[in-house]
Amino acid sequence: MEDLTDEQVIEETLSAYKQYRDYALKEYYTPRLVKWEALPEIQRKLVPSYSSYLSNLKRCISLNADFIEGAVEFFEHASGIQGSVSRPVSRSNMEKVVSMLAQLYREWSAEASSERDILLSRLMPFLSELQGNSSSEEPLEILVPGLGTARLIADLVMHGYRSEGNEYSYYMIIMSMFMLNGGLSSKGIEIYPFVHTNSHWKERNLMFKPIRIPDFDIQSELAGNNLMQISMGSFVDCYGPNEGILGSSHYNINQEMNLKRLNSKSTKDVVVTNFFLDTSGNVIDYLLAIEHVLRPGGTWINFGPLVYHHENDNDSDINYEVDPYSGERTDHSPIPMKGIELTVDEIVAVALKLGFTMLKREDGILSGYGQLPFPESGLNGLPGYRCSYWVMKKRTELMEGAL
Amino acid sequence: MEDLTDEQVIEETLSAYKQYRDYALKEYYTPRLVKWEALPEIQRKLVPSYSSYLSNLKRCISLNADFIEGAVEFFEHASGIQGSVSRPVSRSNMEKVVSMLAQLYREWSAEASSERDILLSRLMPFLSELQGNSSSEEPLEILVPGLGTARLIADLVMHGYRSEGNEYSYYMIIMSMFMLNGGLSSKGIEIYPFVHTNSHWKERNLMFKPIRIPDFDIQSELAGNNLMQISMGSFVDCYGPNEGILGSSHYNINQEMNLKRLNSKSTKDVVVTNFFLDTSGNVIDYLLAIEHVLRPGGTWINFGPLVYHHENDNDSDINYEVDPYSGERTDHSPIPMKGIELTVDEIVAVALKLGFTMLKREDGILSGYGQLPFPESGLNGLPGYRCSYWVMKKRTELMEGAL
Repeated sequence: MEDLTDEQVIEETLSAYKQYRDYALKEYYTPRLVKWEALPEIQRKLVPSYSSYLSNLKRCISLNADFIEGAVEFFEHASGIQGSVSRPVSRSNMEKVVSMLAQLYREWSAEASSERDILLSRLMPFLSELQGNSSSEEPLEILVPGLGTARLIADLVMHGYRSEGNEYSYYMIIMSMFMLNGGLSSKGIEIYPFVHTNSHWKERNLMFKPIRIPDFDIQSELAGNNLMQISMGSFVDCYGPNEGILGSSHYNINQEMNLKRLNSKSTKDVVVTNFFLDTSGNVIDYLLAIEHVLRPGGTWINFGPLVYHHENDNDSDINYEVDPYSGERTDHSPIPMKGIELTVDEIVAVALKLGFTMLKREDGILSGYGQLPFPESGLNGLPGYRCSYWVMKKRTELMEGAL
Repeated sequence: MEDLTDEQVIEETLSAYKQYRDYALKEYYTPRLVKWEALPEIQRKLVPSYSSYLSNLKRCISLNADFIEGAVEFFEHASGIQGSVSRPVSRSNMEKVVSMLAQLYREWSAEASSERDILLSRLMPFLSELQGNSSSEEPLEILVPGLGTARLIADLVMHGYRSEGNEYSYYMIIMSMFMLNGGLSSKGIEIYPFVHTNSHWKERNLMFKPIRIPDFDIQSELAGNNLMQISMGSFVDCYGPNEGILGSSHYNINQEMNLKRLNSKSTKDVVVTNFFLDTSGNVIDYLLAIEHVLRPGGTWINFGPLVYHHENDNDSDINYEVDPYSGERTDHSPIPMKGIELTVDEIVAVALKLGFTMLKREDGILSGYGQLPFPESGLNGLPGYRCSYWVMKKRTELMEGAL
């Protein structure tokens, strides 16, 4: 990715979105049709409902594609950038498009509100108290790294907080832009997020449940309050310190970024990491960035499991240092993407060493993430992850330099 | 696999086992060492315990390798077949070796007994009643397709039932042979099944928990009762009907297998499918085989989730028919491995069409499978799967031909 311009990466992402229809038919529908047609007749007679399953699958993929193409068209029109429907896209990138439908369900549906409430029921009362105790009349400045499709910052803005979302993936950015600016009315869109999973089902019809998003009128609730901002790039690159982190494809050591990071120091009242820490290739980089961007006495709130995204990643990245005097760049050998998957206790221990104080901590909270919405069926979906929630306070100015 | 002889497949499997040490170091240890050593010094100081984590990881991989090499040596000595330590092995086959340690923990440790008891607490009282109601003095004949490392048939034999295990994978067969015939005393082996997972941990030391297997003296409990038998091959190929299934790499249409299947018809009192149905490329084939191998009035007991192993498999297989008169084989196009992933309700509906009667059914039973054994830590491991349990009775002779 480091060799492509932002515009090229956006083009590639738009291309992937545009290929959902063909990909989903080729990957999810056609193999099942072919296999079904190849069954001996005696077997086909045993499952007479299978052909209606196949036509439902085809129909829902097509309706999902209609929605995705609308979102892409909106973004292309707004940005002036175009994706080609015939550009080659990797399987893993196509799966990012597929998973976006579950992500939208998780973030923007009424059905998934109980999942979102696991964090919100803890976060919102705490923030309200923090705002009340604040000496300033200004709303709290909150940073959310790992914007996703922007639901958490939308909730924060609706509660009156100044909220900045940061995101590295254009798959998320493009969909966020559509959700926030597409003029969507309540339940104006119908998607079928569950048609890509054939395991774990008890009843067939649940697979085709339509989900209407968003669950409120985004246009009227969010427009015009000027509290929301979105930044593009890796969290560490945009908000980290200028020391203690190696240059990489996620962290650029150049004058522009050095200055940007210098300006971000001690600018936020609150950082909320929500299902975010485990997206790191090196979680210590994230901890240093959280410490860097918070004001003295600022608050770090975390919620999520530790399912390290790079744990089984066999790719590597080039890490390098830059000599602050000569500007000379020292190339290292390629460094594995996997590694440094700290445990919860180790993450907490690093934070304490960085001068944080623990205000509140809960471990083992059960939560799904885009879990299928039918607990009443007694069978669908995995029960989820065990998550940690904590609230930590950054050391105040007086203690600074203690490290 | 169809082009290799059994002996070649065994050699390949032995080679994979012999490469565990090098693979696990290369895949799990070395990348983490390299990444750790590349961290800026300020970051290494924040996690002083990391170097003891790395040496523990190396030590446990080495101890796992010692155990695996002992099991392989036993099998090589007994079979006269040798694996080469330098033969190329695919990553997915090496991961079968890695996962074997978790499988052994699941089947043979005291720590995982609560997982096994979810089925056993339902199965054993039912079988005891069935045996009691049986008109015959002979022990029930039970077939367990998906032998795994043979724990379930060991439990059945200890309860006095005549038990046959069927298994397709030599990874399982080789380890089963060692567990059953290796002369193992209670807790005689120490393994470290949890060192290959870096996600989901709260405390680091739990990752290195030693597990002692087996949890009883296999030698004295199982020797000499002559109740146990193991068959090698796919369940459908060994026990399926001669009609209604297409030839494939898992189902051979030739005189030898035709005769074997003919002889297996109506031979078993009970079939127990335990975490097995979802291993199918076509679950209807399994249902036809269960129906075929059970005696009239025989019992099918199922326990497990539906996590279809081939759901995302992009391989294909050649299916074919054979003309019963000319013996001519009709080659079809390649058929996708994925597809025909029936829901629980659909599986039950097919069974009812085949003439089964439902005696008992429970859905939504929560169960792990080799889940990490520390629920008290409040964080480790996913909560597991939602499983179905049922007991069905095959139609009696009088009803036969109703189809």
